[in-house]
Amino acid sequence: MPRYIAPTKDIQFLLHDVLNVSEAEIPGYADLEADFTGAILEEAGKLASEVLQPLNTTGDVEGCTLENGVVRTPTGFKDAFEQMKAGGWSGIDFPEEYGGQNLPQVVSSAVGEFFSAANQAFTMYQGLTHGAASAILAHGSEDQKQTYLPKMVACDWTGTMNLTEPHCGTDLGMMRTKAEPQDDGSYSVTGQKIFISAGEHDLADNIIHLVLAKIPGGPDGIKGVSLFIVPKFLVNEDGSLGARNGVSCGKLEEKMGIHGNATCVMNYDGAKGWLLGEEHKGMRAMFTMMNEARLGVGMQGLAQADAAYQNAVDYAKDRLQGRDVTGAKNPDGPADPIIVHPDVRRALMDQKSFAEGARAFILWGATLIDKAHRAGDKDADGLVSLMTPVIKGFLTDQGYDMTVKAQQIYGGHGYIEEWGMSQYTRDARIAMIYEGANGVQALDLVGRKLAQDGGKHVMAFFDLVKNFIKENGGSDDAYDKEFLEPLKAASKDLQAAGMYFMQNGMSNPNNALSGSNDFMHMFGHVCLGLMWAQIGKAAKAALAEGTGDTEFFETKLATGRYYMARQLPATALHLTRIQSGADTVMALDAANF
Amino acid sequence: MPRYIAPTKDIQFLLHDVLNVSEAEIPGYADLEADFTGAILEEAGKLASEVLQPLNTTGDVEGCTLENGVVRTPTGFKDAFEQMKAGGWSGIDFPEEYGGQNLPQVVSSAVGEFFSAANQAFTMYQGLTHGAASAILAHGSEDQKQTYLPKMVACDWTGTMNLTEPHCGTDLGMMRTKAEPQDDGSYSVTGQKIFISAGEHDLADNIIHLVLAKIPGGPDGIKGVSLFIVPKFLVNEDGSLGARNGVSCGKLEEKMGIHGNATCVMNYDGAKGWLLGEEHKGMRAMFTMMNEARLGVGMQGLAQADAAYQNAVDYAKDRLQGRDVTGAKNPDGPADPIIVHPDVRRALMDQKSFAEGARAFILWGATLIDKAHRAGDKDADGLVSLMTPVIKGFLTDQGYDMTVKAQQIYGGHGYIEEWGMSQYTRDARIAMIYEGANGVQALDLVGRKLAQDGGKHVMAFFDLVKNFIKENGGSDDAYDKEFLEPLKAASKDLQAAGMYFMQNGMSNPNNALSGSNDFMHMFGHVCLGLMWAQIGKAAKAALAEGTGDTEFFETKLATGRYYMARQLPATALHLTRIQSGADTVMALDAANF
Repeated sequence: MPRYIAPTKDIQFLLHDVLNVSEAEIPGYADLEADFTGAILEEAGKLASEVLQPLNTTGDVEGCTLENGVVRTPTGFKDAFEQMKAGGWSGIDFPEEYGGQNLPQVVSSAVGEFFSAANQAFTMYQGLTHGAASAILAHGSEDQKQTYLPKMVACDWTGTMNLTEPHCGTDLGMMRTKAEPQDDGSYSVTGQKIFISAGEHDLADNIIHLVLAKIPGGPDGIKGVSLFIVPKFLVNEDGSLGARNGVSCGKLEEKMGIHGNATCVMNYDGAKGWLLGEEHKGMRAMFTMMNEARLGVGMQGLAQADAAYQNAVDYAKDRLQGRDVTGAKNPDGPADPIIVHPDVRRALMDQKSFAEGARAFILWGATLIDKAHRAGDKDADGLVSLMTPVIKGFLTDQGYDMTVKAQQIYGGHGYIEEWGMSQYTRDARIAMIYEGANGVQALDLVGRKLAQDGGKHVMAFFDLVKNFIKENGGSDDAYDKEFLEPLKAASKDLQAAGMYFMQNGMSNPNNALSGSNDFMHMFGHVCLGLMWAQIGKAAKAALAEGTGDTEFFETKLATGRYYMARQLPATALHLTRIQSGADTVMALDAANF
Repeated sequence: MPRYIAPTKDIQFLLHDVLNVSEAEIPGYADLEADFTGAILEEAGKLASEVLQPLNTTGDVEGCTLENGVVRTPTGFKDAFEQMKAGGWSGIDFPEEYGGQNLPQVVSSAVGEFFSAANQAFTMYQGLTHGAASAILAHGSEDQKQTYLPKMVACDWTGTMNLTEPHCGTDLGMMRTKAEPQDDGSYSVTGQKIFISAGEHDLADNIIHLVLAKIPGGPDGIKGVSLFIVPKFLVNEDGSLGARNGVSCGKLEEKMGIHGNATCVMNYDGAKGWLLGEEHKGMRAMFTMMNEARLGVGMQGLAQADAAYQNAVDYAKDRLQGRDVTGAKNPDGPADPIIVHPDVRRALMDQKSFAEGARAFILWGATLIDKAHRAGDKDADGLVSLMTPVIKGFLTDQGYDMTVKAQQIYGGHGYIEEWGMSQYTRDARIAMIYEGANGVQALDLVGRKLAQDGGKHVMAFFDLVKNFIKENGGSDDAYDKEFLEPLKAASKDLQAAGMYFMQNGMSNPNNALSGSNDFMHMFGHVCLGLMWAQIGKAAKAALAEGTGDTEFFETKLATGRYYMARQLPATALHLTRIQSGADTVMALDAANF
């Protein structure tokens, strides 16, 4: 059975030595002293390791069941959900007036990683609720907020997001679900939604569905889509639960993974709904919280990778097989632990350097979101919007690959379900798909975000890298050579790719779009390169001070060197592919595939 | 439900236009005229598409069951197995004296791809039998051959390979299974073997287990391992079945995929066995057929990739979502098929160019095996031995990645089991692990094969590439630029990597072994680059002739250009990683992971 230990020490290092959160001029950040965040992380880590992780296999093996319209979650989920609620974790970043703790995104992202790593399927029940509540908070009327938010912030009621229909996912303009206005100001919602995570279950008294639908007579396509609140049970004026609404779960999907989460076909049959936000502005309302939601999914890529990595390390230290080619390391035993073998180390270093770099990236992204929301910083908002598809697409693609590498360390034992490594890959796989498939992320990045506000945000990103190199270079040859030079080279590759798009994408947009996936990945590498340069700087400073855990800081430097030497150079390959243009990609008639 | 159509046309093109098999001076090849191979491929394709493919999902969903020691295969497997036998497919490449058809490896590899693509779990029952029968053919006494081969060649009896034990897989020297000599010349075999594919089932009257075990008092470690024939039912002198032997299936493993194949824990409890080959030379006997076996697993990587690709193409042509950015392609419909989108094409071209290049690589490898076995060509044997870890490791790593890309085309529909795309990834995953995990393949390549016979074979490979470029360059600028120049650059990268190993591996072998995985992959890319250069040459020649299917040949050239422009340049990244050496890989103490 796998284990999971929350990386609290690493997060503390990132918050206080790298990001220096308590000194940042963002409302609420002054409270984030090391003792304070340490206490939160410790509690969250305990819940993750001791309560959620032990249920991860249970959830995978048992899955959810649907009988007579009732969905049952796996054994133990209900009890764990109550513990999560009792700890106040569901409302950690919501306003105090609705029962939350009003903590910044950077804190909720940190603890979110723990929960997701320990049990992704379980954590999704809370995650979807968070998304739905955020949309109500941003777009709801005062009455809607009072009615739903206290219950949802407490997770007494959970929430869902209903977008996809059988014939449309990415292209929601084709949606068929209808919402017909009623005399009482409500709407009658009819249609079928699929892939609805946490659509029906036994963890909460009520489920608040947010449903995209078209009001008949509205504009065609995506501009005629509105968002509705459709509760499973209608809510009486006094807040008590009334009649069952016309919404039901028609089927549970059999999936590759996240078996513990109920993925539902939801049938709306004249269900009573209330408009959330404005008519025909449903997509805008649904996507207000996009940056946070996609940051959260990118974080899942990191989380599964880290959980899988931790177990792969255990196995590599424990499994005796073969001998170190430079001399036995366990001469009294029948063989050496496989961690002595260079190719096993190569795979583990890939995972370690990814997970720690990705963690920094997520937390940096979270500080930008906080800056945007709490300090009204439009530049921060633009920068994080630019990086959102990178965070989502790059971290989930790479995160998945890392779970595959972790599984590979186990040999045949990784392929059988007994050891739990297969689950990490099967669960991680979904993050590449939902919340906008990664191809759509790449399209969003290259087709929209790059040029946004006249290209201002991507220029700001390049300046940020350039200034970091300038400000931190020249005083330490080893650091310059091992960290700054590779970062500079990678950033140059990324700029060259952007330049290629500018010069060739106007005449033929396919020249840009054929390179979108490569661009997203090279952007991700540059971001992780920047993170490692910052981490390296902080580790050097800490070592110079001579206090603290010297080995921890030395290990950070060594891991950063690995990333810089072995992973960051991938940007050159991506650039080569991008510069080969659209011709080879688009050459074939569809019939010749 | 997925479909599968055997790529008979592509194989015919490779056999007759690229490899020119019927003109090759290899015994048996003169018979391989296009009509002859065409008829075989058509029949095999029919069996694959019509009988095996429809059972692929059944096998995945039902799996195998163990009750009271009896293993039942999924519904329909028994009937399909009889059809496979009736078609004579099980003995296609075995000598006629044992009931086979004595066809070359290049033909059995071609049809093997079809069967494996249609239903990998099913085809393994036959594949394991083939491996066991091959070992008996190579090392058995005349009596053993007469007793077992006719039945095994017909698949009336199936076979297994028993290597792994709970505590050892790669490092078989640690094995504990014992074989104690008995007075009658047999041995009493006791121990436990795990991960035994097709270890127990209901498809055949008898199962012939080949079991590695140690004869007490023999040498320590791997040099004290012998190979034994242990039948499930003892065989009487007249060939009829006698008493049940002391071997049983203790458990079926729950696995990520290949559910239709019974992966057994096999308990040997004083089972009667007979030495196969010489005492203490068990590993040598087991690995005689290594090149073929690993070629077969590499082929599985290709097979799953191609099957997944075929379905991804169907979906991409069918699924309407979004519009072609350069103008609607389906203006009367609600949206364009997603195959118009550059990033979807990019993913499909990755798959197509891999599958077709890999198919050529497999068939080329098979001709080398035929040359070695049928014409006693030692150079061919050396070359294919060098490339065997590349075929196995590169094609299964890449093949798996391609199934993931195929699944991604489906968006959320790829994650639910209903569409069958998850099965391709779950089934393809095992090929990276069994028959020597891919890390072990990379180690075999860099640690052993490169230097074999004084480096003669790798030099021969480089000469082969160099000569091809020399002989085919200079007459067609476009071909030179699009095919030969990229191949030359990639081959130069590969040579530089080999040079790095030579210069830095002596002082510290970790400098070589830290780059083993990258070297295996870059070697694979150069091989596929060579294949595409050959395919391109053949397609050009056919177009110049002006006969045949012009569109087919144009498509070949376009697909080759894609590989050359977008995939082959990966060699440069691998070289960069290799040249960064072992320091960053080996820096950490095990405790600091």
